[in-house]
Amino acid sequence: MGMTMTQKILAAHAGLDSVEPGQLIEAKLDVVLGNDITSPVAINEFEKCGASSVFDNTRIALVMDHFTPNKDIKAAEQCRQVRSFAGKYGIKNFFDVGRMGIEHALLPEKGIVVPGDCIIGADSHTCTYGALGAFSTGVGSTDMAAGMIAGKTWFKVPSAIQVELKGKLNRWVSGKDVILHLIGEIGVDGALYQSLEFTGEGVRSLSMDDRLCIANMAIEAGAKNGIFPVDEVTLAYGEGRFQREAVAYEADPDAVYERKVVIELDKLRPTVSFPHLPENTRVIDEVGEIKIDQSVIGSCTNGRIEDLRTAAEILKGRQVAQNVRCIIIPGTQDIYLQAVREGLAEIFIEAGAVFSTPTCGPCLGGHMGVLGKGERAVSTTNRNFVGRMGHVESEVYLASPAVAAASAVTGYITDPAKL
Amino acid sequence: MGMTMTQKILAAHAGLDSVEPGQLIEAKLDVVLGNDITSPVAINEFEKCGASSVFDNTRIALVMDHFTPNKDIKAAEQCRQVRSFAGKYGIKNFFDVGRMGIEHALLPEKGIVVPGDCIIGADSHTCTYGALGAFSTGVGSTDMAAGMIAGKTWFKVPSAIQVELKGKLNRWVSGKDVILHLIGEIGVDGALYQSLEFTGEGVRSLSMDDRLCIANMAIEAGAKNGIFPVDEVTLAYGEGRFQREAVAYEADPDAVYERKVVIELDKLRPTVSFPHLPENTRVIDEVGEIKIDQSVIGSCTNGRIEDLRTAAEILKGRQVAQNVRCIIIPGTQDIYLQAVREGLAEIFIEAGAVFSTPTCGPCLGGHMGVLGKGERAVSTTNRNFVGRMGHVESEVYLASPAVAAASAVTGYITDPAKL
Repeated sequence: MGMTMTQKILAAHAGLDSVEPGQLIEAKLDVVLGNDITSPVAINEFEKCGASSVFDNTRIALVMDHFTPNKDIKAAEQCRQVRSFAGKYGIKNFFDVGRMGIEHALLPEKGIVVPGDCIIGADSHTCTYGALGAFSTGVGSTDMAAGMIAGKTWFKVPSAIQVELKGKLNRWVSGKDVILHLIGEIGVDGALYQSLEFTGEGVRSLSMDDRLCIANMAIEAGAKNGIFPVDEVTLAYGEGRFQREAVAYEADPDAVYERKVVIELDKLRPTVSFPHLPENTRVIDEVGEIKIDQSVIGSCTNGRIEDLRTAAEILKGRQVAQNVRCIIIPGTQDIYLQAVREGLAEIFIEAGAVFSTPTCGPCLGGHMGVLGKGERAVSTTNRNFVGRMGHVESEVYLASPAVAAASAVTGYITDPAKL
Repeated sequence: MGMTMTQKILAAHAGLDSVEPGQLIEAKLDVVLGNDITSPVAINEFEKCGASSVFDNTRIALVMDHFTPNKDIKAAEQCRQVRSFAGKYGIKNFFDVGRMGIEHALLPEKGIVVPGDCIIGADSHTCTYGALGAFSTGVGSTDMAAGMIAGKTWFKVPSAIQVELKGKLNRWVSGKDVILHLIGEIGVDGALYQSLEFTGEGVRSLSMDDRLCIANMAIEAGAKNGIFPVDEVTLAYGEGRFQREAVAYEADPDAVYERKVVIELDKLRPTVSFPHLPENTRVIDEVGEIKIDQSVIGSCTNGRIEDLRTAAEILKGRQVAQNVRCIIIPGTQDIYLQAVREGLAEIFIEAGAVFSTPTCGPCLGGHMGVLGKGERAVSTTNRNFVGRMGHVESEVYLASPAVAAASAVTGYITDPAKL
């Protein structure tokens, strides 16, 4: 029986010729990831196990991104614990305040994750690296601890949904609209414990930033992972960046998919997920008048340079609406630097937006833009569950950077083409 | 009996020909200020009084600077309350996220406070505006509420200490060193309920940013206010900025001072206040080896453009030490924009520092750089009390931007001249 791309990566990392859906395997890990919230829990487990070494101090990434720069004493203590652990075990990829970024923007940027990798991370959006043709998935902190010790973990091999992409995206339509559309189609558990395997000639037209955004939200359809084929776009992105050799796995021609979904990229419209589930999607034309208090542009989903360029294109020479707080957060320090050099930072500040240092902050109601009672945000982040960005009576509408920027200008959720 | 500069401003605002120390007066207020922490308390008092209007909606300034962008739901609720109040009463100078700055950097910058003013603010560092030749002082939230209703408040007229400045500052010595030196000399209650009146030919050589820094910390010597004469530097600063006519009050030639302190500017050395009081000063040459975990450059004391330029001069082409978090926070959005345009932001990020959006955050252990147990920061902020920046077992060393930047590079408190 033919294997999917995901299955081939898992088989290779388990030292098996083939695997099939439902099979339990033990796979070698290329990278184990944690952040300032999940790593302390993993470190406690690591110590409870009596472990005295990590499997490979070059293959663990610890990124202080959620509540940093330290928002309170608890956040400071969490970072302190991870910093001390990183020092003790000589963790090479420890990223602290001033040298960091949001983990899922940072690891691809630094070339720490490469095509063909098998990666776990104690963060649900670890599936992001599927954009590079890697298998990557989120795990709990205990699994992270075991991964740091053993350099391997168990998986149940997932079955797959084939997502065939056709055509090209129109102006103001982006990877975010692709994934919101897909989640709207199949639902938040539409791909439960399955791989979302993106295929078709439409893939070629998607930039790496679009792919990273799409793979990032695979988990929001319940998927174990989302994955893209390795092509010229992948290799061009990796040029001078990938720290290890890329391995391009390809699905077998007779790979078995449980289901196939076709997306015609040129028919997509800017898409918005209404509260309180990512599957509650509407195209921009059917949104109606939704007044907003805050617009957030950033996060591991949409804090990359293309996202900021799009936002800047819209905000240039315009002003954020009087009663709107527009908070723009670059994904990494390098993206921040690039945004400054390209003049984007200037545009944002002139428009009356906040341009802050990298952090996950507002996405999870952590800091840097928490919502109060009855407040409403349009946000490029990935989840709009009840209370996700703050008060239980607040609301989050998920959208692309283009929609979030246009909405910041008008004060209600807006089609960027109609500005 | 001759009056001091402060006494003359108070007499004028009380409609009296003269006042004397200890006299209780009722003075007209030019500006009443509050922030996101103190305004909600004042608004509650305002409403308890059954007030239905403010004395003048152009003379109240409400600045959302302490815990913004909202660090948590409580912060969001506080801002929401103030936003609603500002809307209801048409408060002209309401400054929200994206359009704001740290109050004491913002109000002078926007020309909202002018020479000769009588100002109260529900924040202890309201004394900053003495740099412009205004009388300004911190009050509690209840006094702020009464001020918003009545446009006047009572004061006990302060006696004064004359601080005569001679000579000029040497390279790497700034206004911060002047005020730390003074507090070291007279102690944290050395000017209790008195005016610190800065005089002498040395004043002329001090930039407005230096004066703002010096007046800002008058409260740290217990002073009711700190004040500078109005001169060419003041008027040049106000050009195209002051929203109202500047009035230059001068101390009478026979003004009575309780004490005189002479500071020879050219003899000052970079000065550091050791934990846990601003009066615990040592010159940089006597500091010894103090290892740091964090360097903070910003706040209402030292987040102005000259401060950032000094930091950039030191950080340019250098790297923040491996184990140090260097957090640089511009005082206002305009200062941020200027820093981007001058290339300072680029220098900071290249050096591995955080360059964040304006907020008081770390100064008061609020957010954006809170310290954990046993951690130590050198900081350009104004207070180093126990637990001020986070954990009760953390330590803050107060210093100038030059010293904080040099220390960020080496990892221990460092004389910028020795880099």
